[in-house]
Amino acid sequence: DAVNQIIVFSVYHSLSLSLSLSLSLPPSPPGDYEERGGSRAAGMNGNGPNKMVDPLEDPLPGLGTYEDFNTIDWVREKSKDRDRHREITNKSKESTVALLHSVSDAFSGWLLMLLVGLMAGALAGGIDIAAHWLTDLKEGLCLVGFWFNHEHCCWTSNETTFQERDRCPQWQSWAELITGTSEGAFAYIVNYLMYIVWALLFALLAVALVRAFAPYACGSGIPEIKTILSGFIIRGYLGKWTLIIKTITLVLAVSSGLSLGKEGPLVHVACCCANILCHLFTKYRKNEAKRREVLSAAAAVGVSVAFGAPIGGVLFSLEEVSYYFPLKTLWRSFFAALVAAFTLHSINPFGNSRLVLFYVEFHAPWHLVELVPFILLGIFGGLWGALFIRANIAWCRRRKSTRLGHYPVMEVLVVTALTAVLAYPNSYTRMSGAELIAELFNDCSLLDSSQLCGYKPPTNTSKTGVGNSLADRPAGEGLYTALWQLALALVFKMMITVITFGMKVPSGLFIPSMAVGAIAGRLLGVGMEQLAYYNHDSFIFKGWCSPGADCITPGLYAMVGAASCLGGVTRMTVSLVVIMFELTGGLEYIVPLMAATMTSKWVADALGREGIYEAHIRLNGYPFLEPKEEFGHSSLTVDVMRPRRSDPALAVLTQEGMTVGEVEALVESTRYSGFPVVVSQESQRLVGFVLRRDLLISIDNARKRQEGVVSASQVVFTEHAPAQADDGPPPLRLRGIVDLSPFTVTDHTPMDITVDIFRKLGLRQCLVTHNGRLLGIITKKDILKHMAQIANRDPDSILFN
Amino acid sequence: DAVNQIIVFSVYHSLSLSLSLSLSLPPSPPGDYEERGGSRAAGMNGNGPNKMVDPLEDPLPGLGTYEDFNTIDWVREKSKDRDRHREITNKSKESTVALLHSVSDAFSGWLLMLLVGLMAGALAGGIDIAAHWLTDLKEGLCLVGFWFNHEHCCWTSNETTFQERDRCPQWQSWAELITGTSEGAFAYIVNYLMYIVWALLFALLAVALVRAFAPYACGSGIPEIKTILSGFIIRGYLGKWTLIIKTITLVLAVSSGLSLGKEGPLVHVACCCANILCHLFTKYRKNEAKRREVLSAAAAVGVSVAFGAPIGGVLFSLEEVSYYFPLKTLWRSFFAALVAAFTLHSINPFGNSRLVLFYVEFHAPWHLVELVPFILLGIFGGLWGALFIRANIAWCRRRKSTRLGHYPVMEVLVVTALTAVLAYPNSYTRMSGAELIAELFNDCSLLDSSQLCGYKPPTNTSKTGVGNSLADRPAGEGLYTALWQLALALVFKMMITVITFGMKVPSGLFIPSMAVGAIAGRLLGVGMEQLAYYNHDSFIFKGWCSPGADCITPGLYAMVGAASCLGGVTRMTVSLVVIMFELTGGLEYIVPLMAATMTSKWVADALGREGIYEAHIRLNGYPFLEPKEEFGHSSLTVDVMRPRRSDPALAVLTQEGMTVGEVEALVESTRYSGFPVVVSQESQRLVGFVLRRDLLISIDNARKRQEGVVSASQVVFTEHAPAQADDGPPPLRLRGIVDLSPFTVTDHTPMDITVDIFRKLGLRQCLVTHNGRLLGIITKKDILKHMAQIANRDPDSILFN
Repeated sequence: DAVNQIIVFSVYHSLSLSLSLSLSLPPSPPGDYEERGGSRAAGMNGNGPNKMVDPLEDPLPGLGTYEDFNTIDWVREKSKDRDRHREITNKSKESTVALLHSVSDAFSGWLLMLLVGLMAGALAGGIDIAAHWLTDLKEGLCLVGFWFNHEHCCWTSNETTFQERDRCPQWQSWAELITGTSEGAFAYIVNYLMYIVWALLFALLAVALVRAFAPYACGSGIPEIKTILSGFIIRGYLGKWTLIIKTITLVLAVSSGLSLGKEGPLVHVACCCANILCHLFTKYRKNEAKRREVLSAAAAVGVSVAFGAPIGGVLFSLEEVSYYFPLKTLWRSFFAALVAAFTLHSINPFGNSRLVLFYVEFHAPWHLVELVPFILLGIFGGLWGALFIRANIAWCRRRKSTRLGHYPVMEVLVVTALTAVLAYPNSYTRMSGAELIAELFNDCSLLDSSQLCGYKPPTNTSKTGVGNSLADRPAGEGLYTALWQLALALVFKMMITVITFGMKVPSGLFIPSMAVGAIAGRLLGVGMEQLAYYNHDSFIFKGWCSPGADCITPGLYAMVGAASCLGGVTRMTVSLVVIMFELTGGLEYIVPLMAATMTSKWVADALGREGIYEAHIRLNGYPFLEPKEEFGHSSLTVDVMRPRRSDPALAVLTQEGMTVGEVEALVESTRYSGFPVVVSQESQRLVGFVLRRDLLISIDNARKRQEGVVSASQVVFTEHAPAQADDGPPPLRLRGIVDLSPFTVTDHTPMDITVDIFRKLGLRQCLVTHNGRLLGIITKKDILKHMAQIANRDPDSILFN
Repeated sequence: DAVNQIIVFSVYHSLSLSLSLSLSLPPSPPGDYEERGGSRAAGMNGNGPNKMVDPLEDPLPGLGTYEDFNTIDWVREKSKDRDRHREITNKSKESTVALLHSVSDAFSGWLLMLLVGLMAGALAGGIDIAAHWLTDLKEGLCLVGFWFNHEHCCWTSNETTFQERDRCPQWQSWAELITGTSEGAFAYIVNYLMYIVWALLFALLAVALVRAFAPYACGSGIPEIKTILSGFIIRGYLGKWTLIIKTITLVLAVSSGLSLGKEGPLVHVACCCANILCHLFTKYRKNEAKRREVLSAAAAVGVSVAFGAPIGGVLFSLEEVSYYFPLKTLWRSFFAALVAAFTLHSINPFGNSRLVLFYVEFHAPWHLVELVPFILLGIFGGLWGALFIRANIAWCRRRKSTRLGHYPVMEVLVVTALTAVLAYPNSYTRMSGAELIAELFNDCSLLDSSQLCGYKPPTNTSKTGVGNSLADRPAGEGLYTALWQLALALVFKMMITVITFGMKVPSGLFIPSMAVGAIAGRLLGVGMEQLAYYNHDSFIFKGWCSPGADCITPGLYAMVGAASCLGGVTRMTVSLVVIMFELTGGLEYIVPLMAATMTSKWVADALGREGIYEAHIRLNGYPFLEPKEEFGHSSLTVDVMRPRRSDPALAVLTQEGMTVGEVEALVESTRYSGFPVVVSQESQRLVGFVLRRDLLISIDNARKRQEGVVSASQVVFTEHAPAQADDGPPPLRLRGIVDLSPFTVTDHTPMDITVDIFRKLGLRQCLVTHNGRLLGIITKKDILKHMAQIANRDPDSILFN
């Protein structure tokens, strides 16, 4: 009869207009990207009393899992976990074994956190040691044992001063080994060439390994992890191959001297550890939502080991990376971050028993007037952050669209060669980014022999008493040279980082951004210091900066500058300030840091709303619904939902009256991820929602296992089979796979509320009704497309491309 | 005709069974507590294109506000704010003035935060200074000027050692002033009596002020603030009278020597400041959701000034108090917390230019073996926390139910007298809680003259070199006395705090809980120390605790104990550890703190799920949907919604066909907070939801202002008036007040999902449908009642009583 007629669209129509657009994608990366075929055993949970006997009593294999490049359904996943928990709790009253199981289940989360912390801490320690050794290998070799780095090699040396110990006889530069002398132009050229050769070798190895074994190991990984945490599935992104290759190639990439850091990739490495360790526990292996809680904690672990800042790491995860961050995750992240930090501490990779990456200790307080230069640094950081993002995105777009993208190995080699050639002559670019930042943060003490502390010696020795540092003195020759070199290094770092970030090697942005800021800050700091020295009596400095007093700390300026630039690029605020606070341990310097990072964020936001990670997410077309961005348009849900007013009606199933053949034809003729079930075509009253994948698996299974299921069998979604049982084949009952509690909004719901619902509940799709009748459907991708349209962007960019 | 007939229940039925239960409440506290009459201009927002011309174009006064003791609708409030923001943004393109307005609007949040920080910091400083002075006034008077406290009075004194300076001639005890001598039994008795008299005076003043001017000023305020932040309205709770009275009585209560702290009430004070300052900005004055964001930040400010720990404060707000905490609030809270901390810092109430309440500096590292006593402290803290909560709740319940509750002033006086009589003889209970904790946290140095550092003098002076502290020595007479006194103080504090917390004076729990833990910790620490001293060679201490080395720090034990007990009482974890971390500034001691607080939380949770604040919320019957608690039952929404299966059908309005008289009769005969609008009584297809208050205001207004509106006029909720316009009066069009996007769930939705939706979106009510037909309604209170039923508690406890 007419009620049971199926509306079949042409395949062509559905391809272009349906809720899940089909794509003509290049075959790689694996899987096509559309919201089709995601599956879950939703209707089977929690509906206990109403569940009818159907052939799906044992969940079929495949039910409750998702396909690659699909969005998970947070609500159902969490509901599944609660069902699981409830079952274990109920059973625990029955026997002691079950009780023990329940207790071990409750503590498995903590155990997992412990393991993640230990593993990530150990890996980070290993990476630090290996990178240190390989970096030094570019310059020379230890004769006592080639596996020693420069510092270790000279530990046993008898020289007393630091400077002499650095030139211990056990450590020989390549020129010494090859030509026998370390002096003269020839030796310099040999060292220069060896430096370039090693850099190229490391870079080649890194990019070759990435290309051959784990394409996902490139980049920083944070944009993808943000997307995954928001509920997207990218299989293999956090797998063991990615972990192994990323760990190895990260060491190589850092050692090659490229302008990149290991902090972002360490987050990726920690998440890989967490994902792999999740397989040990059923609770986390089988539930995508629970696993994401662990991954959120792992992101905290990554930053914790990168900077030795556990609290900062947790806040980083909360502020920057995570999508769903319940309080339980807060506690567990904190625990894992602590475990990781102490594992790293006991490995002691820096050999100085410091937990933090850059240990700084400032003695002089800052003065209110200094807020002006600090805010200037904030403006600089914001400007640079916004410009960097634009330039980097433009460059990455060019890489994607032109022939440049076809030669990633060549690109890496050319950039490495360029970096090595330009970096070697300047001592501040030759050293690694982390060393450079440590040196810039450092406050000059009396014993310091660094060029940056090359102030003129005091003419009157009696004036500089004990404890009076070298600051507040006129700049000497050494300092002027250092300033010139720093200025050149600044320009170089600003340029080269733009083309480095995004290449097919693991690359983090934290260290390069901080280096840029630290150089700018130190330059300004020294400038302020000299200004104060020569203008003691001006009204600005009078009263707080008397001669001989230690009033301006250039190292603090470097720190503020580093925070500004990192803030401008990533738009972090609180976590950044807390990380910096953990480095210094003094609450005193929070105000300058806060002022600079807030300024930096405001300036950068005024020039472009997105941070670097959001920009890369958009560049890659991931379906990410930014939780921070406000939906500022006044459209209604009816304007965004499918089908549009001019489109054919929605493809729906009726709860009874359709045959297996009709259902199969409907499914085959469309590419929707799921179908609403209605009472009848006339009433359009909504019963539930059934997923394409579940439908296909169930029908397929029924045809194989159940007798008498043929194309003419009726498909029944109701609780009781219809009374009019005729002589035909027995009906196929599929109520078990129907989600009887689909989310609905009305057509009049303002879009901002709908977006809020999607964000907060983590929905895949939502049905739209008008006066109780089904009108349409709205998916996450529809929302993203609509938001892109509003922002005058290409809506089709929300795809993999 | 039949379609338009109204279903009228008996009032008695509706009172007991309706979605919003009416109560037979005592007249005070003001207002009856039920979800009736909350109002909002929901349907008027975002529905622009569909809005029909009706008499409500200018929102009536009263629309969009809530009555007292109502729950706000988070979704609509936020939507309203977005509409407002959109309007300002759109206008800003038109003129420069509008642009400036838009900019100032954007920065008003930051300005407000600045003001809150300044005001709360200044108030906290004032409270500290005043409490210090009044506390000392109990013991004596400064002759130089009565407004000086003991420490200030003796600052100008010439005595060199600390001990002598404490007995400076300018400061005279009451015995000296009255009897002329400070020695002998008579002087002691005079001092004792004066101490009691002053304590009684302060307590009497405090309770009288609270009773007379601001009943809401009593208690810690945190349970109520948690409830308010979750979306409840308690008018006057954060008003200016509460602020003034709470500030004054807090000083008095703390000075009276009662076993209470000022930390919790400071959160209340900060929230009052924020609420009052919100009135300066339209954006926050008119929007309940936005105002709650500010209050969340104010809670952070409160803890920030209480402990001098801004990061800990923000995490406290996030972990313990807040309900809705977006990232924007995180940044702003952090900013406000910093401003407040630095305001307090510049007031310098402790006179030592320290930001933190208890400054501690430990030198010795801890050893892995020490984790055993630390975990023991955690177990103690958990046990005490759970027992304290039970005892305190039982006592408070007794106060509510017996005649005890009718004499609050007498109660306060008796408890104060008891406290003063018992506390005076023991020096550790005589001093204020904060002083006690500071002394217990303190590490013994060589110069320390405190009894707690009464170790036997070294027999061989050559053995104790420079820098070797007094630790690791046999206990002397002084220390034994101190230990006895501490043990007595422990028992006393444990008892008296139970009956003190909940009296009608401002009272915080942080300091008493910490004091109990700190005493227990110090006792255990000294015990461990002596054990180590006498068993240097046992396998436990061998290797890390050699003679003469400084291996065990009793102060650290006190700190760990304090954290454990506070954790046991409040169930804080991360924020507690971070607050403690900010006190010491060393990451090293995080692991002992973490181990102890986690143990404490687990132990306490095993004995009772609720922290003290949740327990008090439940005791007071506030409608608070705990975000941490998992809903562990497998019921469906249909089991919880109203009407129950045996009840009469739901009271609904039809979108056309009802007359004004019929609508008024329906509204009068029920006490529901709102009514669903359906297409017709037969179809029961849902159109929208209209609030009782909006309906009454609109009809009332139409009768007054609109001509021809009589009881026989048709009420029309549809977009277009029905075609069959007869000779009767013109219809009253009320589509403008209908919320056309009510939230719906299906009857089959598992309750855990429904609860999740309520929590995450902050709903008041949600409609329940089955196959597209309206079936019932579910409110926050229904959920709370259901949860109480599951937990075998009295469901009617979810009321004010």
